[in-house]
Amino acid sequence: MKDDYGQLISSLAQANDKKIVMLVLDGLGDTDNDGQGTALQMARTPNMDQLAQKSALGMAHPVFPDITLGSGPGHIGLFGYDPVIYRIGRGVLSALGLDFNLRKEDVAARLNFCTLDYEGEVTDRRAGRISSEKNHELLEKIKKNLSINDDLEVFLETESEHRALLVLRGKDLDDKVGDTDPQQTGKKPLDPTRSPYYGSKTAKITRDIFDQVREILKDESPANMVLSRGFAQLPDWPSFHERYKLKPAAVAGYPMYCGIARLLGMEVFSKPKSPADIISETVKAMKEYDFVFTHFKDPDKTGENGDLQEKIKALEAMDEALPELTSNLPDVLIITGDHSTPAPLGAHSWHPVPILLKAPAIRGPFLESFDEITALRGELGMISSKEIMTLAMAHAGKLAKFGA
Amino acid sequence: MKDDYGQLISSLAQANDKKIVMLVLDGLGDTDNDGQGTALQMARTPNMDQLAQKSALGMAHPVFPDITLGSGPGHIGLFGYDPVIYRIGRGVLSALGLDFNLRKEDVAARLNFCTLDYEGEVTDRRAGRISSEKNHELLEKIKKNLSINDDLEVFLETESEHRALLVLRGKDLDDKVGDTDPQQTGKKPLDPTRSPYYGSKTAKITRDIFDQVREILKDESPANMVLSRGFAQLPDWPSFHERYKLKPAAVAGYPMYCGIARLLGMEVFSKPKSPADIISETVKAMKEYDFVFTHFKDPDKTGENGDLQEKIKALEAMDEALPELTSNLPDVLIITGDHSTPAPLGAHSWHPVPILLKAPAIRGPFLESFDEITALRGELGMISSKEIMTLAMAHAGKLAKFGA
Repeated sequence: MKDDYGQLISSLAQANDKKIVMLVLDGLGDTDNDGQGTALQMARTPNMDQLAQKSALGMAHPVFPDITLGSGPGHIGLFGYDPVIYRIGRGVLSALGLDFNLRKEDVAARLNFCTLDYEGEVTDRRAGRISSEKNHELLEKIKKNLSINDDLEVFLETESEHRALLVLRGKDLDDKVGDTDPQQTGKKPLDPTRSPYYGSKTAKITRDIFDQVREILKDESPANMVLSRGFAQLPDWPSFHERYKLKPAAVAGYPMYCGIARLLGMEVFSKPKSPADIISETVKAMKEYDFVFTHFKDPDKTGENGDLQEKIKALEAMDEALPELTSNLPDVLIITGDHSTPAPLGAHSWHPVPILLKAPAIRGPFLESFDEITALRGELGMISSKEIMTLAMAHAGKLAKFGA
Repeated sequence: MKDDYGQLISSLAQANDKKIVMLVLDGLGDTDNDGQGTALQMARTPNMDQLAQKSALGMAHPVFPDITLGSGPGHIGLFGYDPVIYRIGRGVLSALGLDFNLRKEDVAARLNFCTLDYEGEVTDRRAGRISSEKNHELLEKIKKNLSINDDLEVFLETESEHRALLVLRGKDLDDKVGDTDPQQTGKKPLDPTRSPYYGSKTAKITRDIFDQVREILKDESPANMVLSRGFAQLPDWPSFHERYKLKPAAVAGYPMYCGIARLLGMEVFSKPKSPADIISETVKAMKEYDFVFTHFKDPDKTGENGDLQEKIKALEAMDEALPELTSNLPDVLIITGDHSTPAPLGAHSWHPVPILLKAPAIRGPFLESFDEITALRGELGMISSKEIMTLAMAHAGKLAKFGA
């Protein structure tokens, strides 16, 4: 797909000395809790509320009104890249999440340990969710016994439970490799070299490796084989500097977010985890960079756990840390989420996320607090997450006029 | 880019005897003024407010939530043509703005007088913003001394200060001519025949003309050369009649708006400038035409000047003239803007514009006044400017049902 919007933005982007901070409260956005409101409504967040009273509020669909996003595409969208056009393969996401230093020529795939029966058919696609320790032990066994050519390197890394990362490093590799996961039990693993993948050198290498793995693991139980998904290489995307003429930094404590930030040419400034550290590192980064992406994971983690009280606490903890940033306000400050993770659902959801934009050229109405219900009445209306970044650019005077 | 939406509309458009008036308050839409509200909120506009109480209100993004539009694309959008697809070259816009009668075979470009140093490098891209009189005098000198072939005509017109219009008229001309403006000082003017323009006959003609201009102006100071931008020909777009089956007229006092109206096949009915004349000419035009585009420039002009009080006065003056139209109501009346020009910014901006739609088939809620904050709660929600025209068509019964 062509990215006409991205090209338009890049043709209008202009540098100036204004600073933009995007504070992402991962998984911000909840559903109602028995009529008591959302986590953000229930949390005591006086600092965000005070900020909201001088800000533009609105709501954003992470992509479409109905699609639940993973954190990868969620952030891609927040950075202004259409997540439907700019897709990261599963293998690359796994590598980023493990802080694996993936190179341009590498091919990465996600592996799951599985169980095969005596006929070679899959009986459990997750091998009974073996422990991470067992996973590590089996990968060591594979590495020790795997025989490969000198011009190839094979990396195997434990993710968690039955999940692992495979990275191939060598010359002229490609990602035209068929997934071997048949997606259902009672079937044999698929051949990675099947049509349309038969011409791929990497598919042949993969078949050879998996044949060996099967032999190496044949006496193990329940994990006697691996299934692969999402062979992918690092994408070649326009960087933040190319698209926005920005010098960007990331303040993010978790590998995957640092990885996505690096993909777009951001420097990882530091990796704090507590709200106070996150905010003070952001204030430091603002001195050197004109765009700072700041990531706070806890609202998502607590939301995924279905723990409303912990989610409220996470939001309150960030609110308490906020004054250091509000007393060192950047020209444009955005507070929003990459997607909703409602505690009542215990999972990511499709619901839009609230946006707070503190910036010059605010119109009003000036509303009382920052939450999903209030933000619905805000001046920004209901937009798409991929427009938040360019809205920040507009408010910072970093977008030229289109046409005379 | 393909215009699927436009084709759909065209396939559904049907003529009837209903009348539509689109009153464009240029630059309508402001930001907040120190908590006192926007210009439209501050202005006393009892007639618009009374109309609003019986109308559908809403907000429109001129294109995207974050892009600041020029008046050219702003109007293209209001007329229902996607301004990202339907682009007018800079040269054509300049010609329209000067009321130059551009023909199909002509090529137009925008010129800026500039200053070159003894090495031929640009030291001032605007030649110290010379006066319009000096500009005129230099163009006369060029015309007098320029030697061109018999089959070519060259038109040179003063725009204002350092700005001028160049039009070439002849056979087989094209617009594949490189801009000579290097966009920064310390560089030489660019060669209009450089790749990918080297095959263009018009690029060669242009180079020859600019070589002569340099010789003609060599003893002048500070304006001793011209730089060119935006070579363009009249676009060949579907007319209002083709797209909407309408017989359209324009009541617009300024050349550029008349020019865009003509581009889309509208008759320029008259060119009044005072609010009272604008409204009474509109009422007259309604008798003969089933679509009237009425343009009022003052809110934009005063907004660009950063003059809040004058902007308020302009809005109040139009409101005072309105009863002649409200007592001769067309079937559908739209009042909106082409883009916001907030007085606090003194420039066009990206903020959405309020829409008032007085028509049959209104749903409610019925709100108290016409302004940016109130319209945010209106039934139309937040739409795109290019949908306003077709919304008017729908309310006028001029769009057939899609599918059975």
